Amino acid sequence: MPRLLALTAATLAAGTALAIPPPPTPTATELAQRGDDIAWSITEGLTTEIGPRMAGTEAEAAARRWALARLKALGFQNVREEEFRMQTWVRGEESAALTGPFQPQALHIAALGNSASTGPKGIEGEIAYFASYDALVAAPDASVKGKIVFIDHQMQPAQDGSGYSYYGRGRFTGPNVAAKKGAIATVIRSIGTDDHRGAHAGGTNFEAGVKPIPAGALSNPDADQLVRQWQRTRQMRTKETALGYTPEPLRMNLVLTPRNLGQRASGNIIAEVPGSDPAASPVIIACHLDSWDLGTGAIDDASGCGIIAAAAKHVMTAGQPRRTIRILWAGAEEVGVFGGKAYFDAHGKERHAVALESDFGADRVWRVDFKLPDSAKPVADRIAAAVMPFGVVRGRQPASGGADIGALVQAGVPAIDLQQDGTRYFDLHHTPDDTLDKVDPVQLRQNVVVWTATLAILADSSDAELP
Amino acid sequence: MPRLLALTAATLAAGTALAIPPPPTPTATELAQRGDDIAWSITEGLTTEIGPRMAGTEAEAAARRWALARLKALGFQNVREEEFRMQTWVRGEESAALTGPFQPQALHIAALGNSASTGPKGIEGEIAYFASYDALVAAPDASVKGKIVFIDHQMQPAQDGSGYSYYGRGRFTGPNVAAKKGAIATVIRSIGTDDHRGAHAGGTNFEAGVKPIPAGALSNPDADQLVRQWQRTRQMRTKETALGYTPEPLRMNLVLTPRNLGQRASGNIIAEVPGSDPAASPVIIACHLDSWDLGTGAIDDASGCGIIAAAAKHVMTAGQPRRTIRILWAGAEEVGVFGGKAYFDAHGKERHAVALESDFGADRVWRVDFKLPDSAKPVADRIAAAVMPFGVVRGRQPASGGADIGALVQAGVPAIDLQQDGTRYFDLHHTPDDTLDKVDPVQLRQNVVVWTATLAILADSSDAELP
Repeated sequence: MPRLLALTAATLAAGTALAIPPPPTPTATELAQRGDDIAWSITEGLTTEIGPRMAGTEAEAAARRWALARLKALGFQNVREEEFRMQTWVRGEESAALTGPFQPQALHIAALGNSASTGPKGIEGEIAYFASYDALVAAPDASVKGKIVFIDHQMQPAQDGSGYSYYGRGRFTGPNVAAKKGAIATVIRSIGTDDHRGAHAGGTNFEAGVKPIPAGALSNPDADQLVRQWQRTRQMRTKETALGYTPEPLRMNLVLTPRNLGQRASGNIIAEVPGSDPAASPVIIACHLDSWDLGTGAIDDASGCGIIAAAAKHVMTAGQPRRTIRILWAGAEEVGVFGGKAYFDAHGKERHAVALESDFGADRVWRVDFKLPDSAKPVADRIAAAVMPFGVVRGRQPASGGADIGALVQAGVPAIDLQQDGTRYFDLHHTPDDTLDKVDPVQLRQNVVVWTATLAILADSSDAELP
Repeated sequence: MPRLLALTAATLAAGTALAIPPPPTPTATELAQRGDDIAWSITEGLTTEIGPRMAGTEAEAAARRWALARLKALGFQNVREEEFRMQTWVRGEESAALTGPFQPQALHIAALGNSASTGPKGIEGEIAYFASYDALVAAPDASVKGKIVFIDHQMQPAQDGSGYSYYGRGRFTGPNVAAKKGAIATVIRSIGTDDHRGAHAGGTNFEAGVKPIPAGALSNPDADQLVRQWQRTRQMRTKETALGYTPEPLRMNLVLTPRNLGQRASGNIIAEVPGSDPAASPVIIACHLDSWDLGTGAIDDASGCGIIAAAAKHVMTAGQPRRTIRILWAGAEEVGVFGGKAYFDAHGKERHAVALESDFGADRVWRVDFKLPDSAKPVADRIAAAVMPFGVVRGRQPASGGADIGALVQAGVPAIDLQQDGTRYFDLHHTPDDTLDKVDPVQLRQNVVVWTATLAILADSSDAELP
């Protein structure tokens, strides 16, 4: 060994004895910035070893076992499952084909959650076309009765995801509206912004007293095809009717055989970083463990579970926080937020300092919104300053929380939204394409850094700031 | 009517009588530049009214009827079908799932053309992983025998599509190599550059004397999943073996039930723009009418048929060319170039001045390559100058022709390649995503303009230039 190196090594080995000051303890944010294998590892592991994990199924139960082991291995405390039961719906066979004056073509379709079954032989009916949900609402019953309603309306991408509630009405309640008007089924254009053949799944809801009808979503290219055939058939019919002869209208053969399995077990997974002050109210951070069944639930919401667990781990590693951090990996979010409701039923009366959720993919956090008591303005200021270097702007609108913390926020618990860039989120949302390769490790890490910075401030906030 | 307008109208109406010179006759290229509904209309019509048109099926026959009517309506002459018969293979049921130490997950798979059937109950076997086709070729039989071979190797995009022959070997002959080594089935990573769940179909070939085995392609995200599970299982096995216990290796359940329907009818559709000099040899331009069955064959190859027909129509409209232009919409290209072979059998002894084919999507022409006799150098120079304004560079390599004109070019017919930008071609090639929305109308029109300019020069070339 060259003399200089040997000397350096000896000096380093004897560092403490020579009274060289130890390096400063890194902050949680610095730990997160150094590299983050935790969020990636959770996202990769959950999608690889479990994959799709539909609420109420064995796959979701396997995900809970996986989660318990993983959160314990990360060193969290009070790691536990809180079981609940929920109505379980599972997909069956599904196919759709247009029958009209053209060569028969199969369409890619996915049944919507809570869809009724057509029975294995399927049903067949004339297409009643509606350009939007609003057009269906305005339509007279006679234009719908006995037909298969199709709801068009191509979703457009938006960074803040704000189109989801607008375009999503076609899925959320379109089939219910159609059922009340006497439709025999409803097929919608997927609530999605991509041009691939994988349909976007998702839940639909029928009012009490309305008998569910079969309901499915076509991929965007398949919806385009239906629309072109429908327009062409209508032109032919108009032309031919003038000649005294009317060809058949466009019809659809539809097979959807989902099943209701009745009440099944699901559960929430909870883990904690115990705070140093047992009297202080906890910070709750949430994601959901279940996923739709078509993809492996990478961006919805394995990455969210990875982000929040990684942030909590970094805060824990940097030193015990004052407040307890409670991690909630909720079950059965996609099919009705059953996990969020179960958490609220069990814990809604406990004090919570503030609630946050990560459930909008793995792309970067671009804005932070607050809904805090006036006393917490210094907290918001500290957080806005801490996340600013990572490209996050301070929003001017109140935070709205997320699905799993929705009941808590509704009940008055303060909330912060670390808003993720949703520009491409609805390309992937609830499709077969929601797979690990869609997670950008660089943006995933930015999420962890921003979450860690935020969580560190919240966990050490004073009782005067957050009650 | 104001006085000035009335005067103008009268002047225009009496234009000829007042001896105002008529406007110059537009060239074919100018006609193409004015707007081109023909290529779009053919692409849209074929994909909407017929859709997938697998060789030998009723859908391909419907496409031929559609083509005959369409080409006649465009005013072409000698529009006819030349029937031939070919071995017909059709897809059946298909599913694949990995069984190992993890939660079972379904994979998206598509059988390759000429794949054998697993039977409806499927087969099950251990995965033998190979990083590439070359690795499989180099492997000892014992590492493959009785197993399901998986061939990895992620295709990378290239503007000139040059990776297809390199990466494609895994599909073209990988299953044949595996069968000879005793594999029970072969599953490959799709020959494709995208990250969507639709697998890339395509033909595979077994040598005479080699018994076909089941062969399928996984989508890229599914291949990623298989690779991650395989690596993880191997790590577990290595670790556990050191402990004296070996867990099961990764296995796959595979169901592929394609069928051979025996000899069925297919056919070539031919149409002509008759030249003014019946002694001059014709220019032949080709595309293929059949498609794979997963998408609607928009970029492969409805757009090619639209481009060549539009170019021929513009040349015809501008005035009768000296040489006949023969349009070949070939049948059964995808499954073995049966249409190209049938054309050569019927017409290979006739003289052809030059052959061109459009079968690489609908993105812009970026380069022109020539393989012409020395006498035709002035023709090449004129074409290069004519297409230059539309962003086309002159290539330095010889043209290679296309599949359907392959036998002609092999026999010595001169060829010109109007090379299309293939950067995103293998995102879509043979997938469910090959649908109309992937065709960019602006780039489609550029193809028509470049083809029209080229075709006009070729159709009026002298006998001294092209024999």
